[in-house]
Amino acid sequence: MGQFGNLPEGSGRKQVAREIYDGLKGQIASGAYGPGALLPSTRALAAELDVSRTTVTAVYEQLLAEGFLETRQGGKTRVSSALARPVSSVTRRTSRSQPARLSGYGRRIADLPAPPSSPAGKLVADFRYGDLTAADFPTLPWKRALNAAMLRRPQRLRYGDPRGAHELRAALQNYLWRARSLRCDAEQIIVVNGSQQGIDLCARLLLDPADRFVIEDPCYAMARQVFISAGGVPVPVEVDQEGMRTDRLAKIDDARLCYVTPSHQFPLGSVMSAARRQELLAWARRTGATIVEDDYDSEYRYDIRPIEPLQTAGGDEHVIYLGTVSKTLSPMLRLGYLVVPDTLRDAFMRAKQLTDRHTPALEQDALADLVASGAYERHVRKARRRNGERRTALLEALAARLGDSVTVVGADAGLHVVVWFNDIPRRREEALIRKGQSSGLGLYPVTPLYGASAVAYRPDRAGLVVGYAGLDAREIRRGVDGLARVLKSLTGKDR
Amino acid sequence: MGQFGNLPEGSGRKQVAREIYDGLKGQIASGAYGPGALLPSTRALAAELDVSRTTVTAVYEQLLAEGFLETRQGGKTRVSSALARPVSSVTRRTSRSQPARLSGYGRRIADLPAPPSSPAGKLVADFRYGDLTAADFPTLPWKRALNAAMLRRPQRLRYGDPRGAHELRAALQNYLWRARSLRCDAEQIIVVNGSQQGIDLCARLLLDPADRFVIEDPCYAMARQVFISAGGVPVPVEVDQEGMRTDRLAKIDDARLCYVTPSHQFPLGSVMSAARRQELLAWARRTGATIVEDDYDSEYRYDIRPIEPLQTAGGDEHVIYLGTVSKTLSPMLRLGYLVVPDTLRDAFMRAKQLTDRHTPALEQDALADLVASGAYERHVRKARRRNGERRTALLEALAARLGDSVTVVGADAGLHVVVWFNDIPRRREEALIRKGQSSGLGLYPVTPLYGASAVAYRPDRAGLVVGYAGLDAREIRRGVDGLARVLKSLTGKDR
Repeated sequence: MGQFGNLPEGSGRKQVAREIYDGLKGQIASGAYGPGALLPSTRALAAELDVSRTTVTAVYEQLLAEGFLETRQGGKTRVSSALARPVSSVTRRTSRSQPARLSGYGRRIADLPAPPSSPAGKLVADFRYGDLTAADFPTLPWKRALNAAMLRRPQRLRYGDPRGAHELRAALQNYLWRARSLRCDAEQIIVVNGSQQGIDLCARLLLDPADRFVIEDPCYAMARQVFISAGGVPVPVEVDQEGMRTDRLAKIDDARLCYVTPSHQFPLGSVMSAARRQELLAWARRTGATIVEDDYDSEYRYDIRPIEPLQTAGGDEHVIYLGTVSKTLSPMLRLGYLVVPDTLRDAFMRAKQLTDRHTPALEQDALADLVASGAYERHVRKARRRNGERRTALLEALAARLGDSVTVVGADAGLHVVVWFNDIPRRREEALIRKGQSSGLGLYPVTPLYGASAVAYRPDRAGLVVGYAGLDAREIRRGVDGLARVLKSLTGKDR
Repeated sequence: MGQFGNLPEGSGRKQVAREIYDGLKGQIASGAYGPGALLPSTRALAAELDVSRTTVTAVYEQLLAEGFLETRQGGKTRVSSALARPVSSVTRRTSRSQPARLSGYGRRIADLPAPPSSPAGKLVADFRYGDLTAADFPTLPWKRALNAAMLRRPQRLRYGDPRGAHELRAALQNYLWRARSLRCDAEQIIVVNGSQQGIDLCARLLLDPADRFVIEDPCYAMARQVFISAGGVPVPVEVDQEGMRTDRLAKIDDARLCYVTPSHQFPLGSVMSAARRQELLAWARRTGATIVEDDYDSEYRYDIRPIEPLQTAGGDEHVIYLGTVSKTLSPMLRLGYLVVPDTLRDAFMRAKQLTDRHTPALEQDALADLVASGAYERHVRKARRRNGERRTALLEALAARLGDSVTVVGADAGLHVVVWFNDIPRRREEALIRKGQSSGLGLYPVTPLYGASAVAYRPDRAGLVVGYAGLDAREIRRGVDGLARVLKSLTGKDR
């Protein structure tokens, strides 16, 4: 064979070159290196593989000769752009050996539906709840805080406190008092990767397989899924305009945990009344259940006064409070925090440490800066104003274009509303969403947020969770226009 | 009462002011606002609490009059620096109600020892394994990559792909092939928050309570703890100079998982031989066990050639490969990755999503930039050179100052060695460490890395895990000098 011709025979070098050649060709064939992809320099690859540069050069030359690679201006070597992209980028093998078995956890999560994804392509309006407008993000203050945090780095890089950086916990403690009248010690705060991790830690530490947990119905589906993934058995409790129906708890003595959103029920938007808060706390004290209070969007309140959290209302021994910056800064940052009772501090600290050591340090430091300097609260006030404007645009458009054909609930606070379609029965909810999608609308059903599809308290109407924080006023109006057209085509009624 | 004198009577305002007053005073009494701490401006607090500024001003004036607050130049209000710091910053209450019960997971982790912490105060030399020198961190490239990533942000902020950003997975796929001869599809890669989270996900998805798992003995203690926390029962297997004794596996048919560090056994430093690799893979194929291959420090190899991972040696259906940047960039970043078999892709994706949605986006984007541009590998080569110099300094100092009184193992690769003290029996290991600490040395015992204290293959000598990546050559030499003095005082021998 004439391959790698300029390498000496019998030195073992040809064998090494052959291995590198096979490897590269395999990567090109599998699409790992796609057409036009830049290859490492011969120097870099030789250094990495600990072989001579001559060997790598010989391999590159061979592949150039065979047309797999090409050299353009500047002498850089690329995968030939003439090559077709492979159809499948991985070669499947059928396994003849024993496959891995999943744990109970693994089998439970395999059965859970994934959260809905946005339709592909450019949309007229995507009413996806949880998205924020990037233009609202305080880019400059965040960049400054990140860069300052990098400069402050200690001499040694080492694992941080599993509970989170002291500076951030101290800043959050003060913030929580100012913004939420929540009193706690910084030692009770555990910084987590967004509220999702906070919920997961609660599930792991407080639920065993077959344990019952109380949850609002409808609710945040990813919370219910986490508790189910831990083996928990849901006890769904109806929600009305005063929040969760706590009178239903009287007969439930054996639940280990109760997940609630008292400041702004997700998704229906009611605020839990004072009487029900007292009833819930009394139930937790009596039964020993722990309340997980998810305060996911309390920064956004429009026509109502802030209400102190359950954690503060005398229930701190039985309440785990959960906050996040996913709705104020960005869901992509993955920053949240738990306030846990003294009795659970050590367990949460240790669980966080075993789970992932701690939340990334740089982002913690930047957030600490923002909160301690007051920049965070200034940003929150600005975001509240902007989202208030979006909310007004949405409510006005819904009233003008859809009027009596819809009932809008939960608009006092938060970044979403629920829209019930008075003339469309529940069974046509999916048709409404598909029709909307084909008109370029991202619409999201309320049904998956209910624990079961057939409960008496679930209105027999189609319902949508309509998030508005990712849209501007013009997109909101165009989206509602589109929705009105979809509605007309479904019901035949014109307004 | 003369309090809040300038507020009108009967307007409810005094009641509001009283609540704010009580709250602030409570925060000062508890130490939440310590002496000298800056209070929010009356405008900011009024805006946050949604009360009039007059009300907040009246409260501040009352607290100023009572000596809790003071105003200095600039008119900013602070907690009086004359106040003594409270003894305890949290008032403990005795609970009369039912306390929360921990889950099996919670009870299991409560019994596990925490990782050793560094001694307090300034040290002569801290030989803590896992620490890196901050000066080695590529601050400028990282800052540039972070800032570039911020500019590239999409119009909407939303949850990312649970498996990690596509750009990062594609960059890692190419890197793994170049640096580790590891072939995989980008779809098999799951970005995680450091290897700790990778191990935790493996434990959750593959182990049920009472399931057996094979683990090297000694091993990385936090890995063993994670598998135990999932309810797993450890089957420790002896390690020698060829790595784990795979001949011991013949009789183990019911283990679900096997955790190994074949490239550089932690902590003893041996490289698993080719024959044992084949034996291990054959065992996994036969029994259906999954191998977790932790490749935690393979970037650092000095006198040896790189060895291809188990994942590549034909075992990709039974091997989960685990990599991290904790040893190359920083342990504080919390970035790692799994390469999982096709059959486990969906399970890992879903588990990651339910656990914490995804790893923070900005850091993923920055790492993708660094890896794709080649800057990461340039940095790794530089870090390898620097750590090679530290290693030389350590080995030379140990030979010169401690000579035959110690046996040093595992120096071919990685960022640590194990030092066995030939003249100090195992039972005096703790005394050695305490004595070192009182001389300003951070020393870390090998004993906690063994599954049980009394096994025949554990040498009856004191042993230390000596990490050197956080020290400069001068500190290393001073540290070894100190160690020689400690040794002399313990054995009475002088060299």
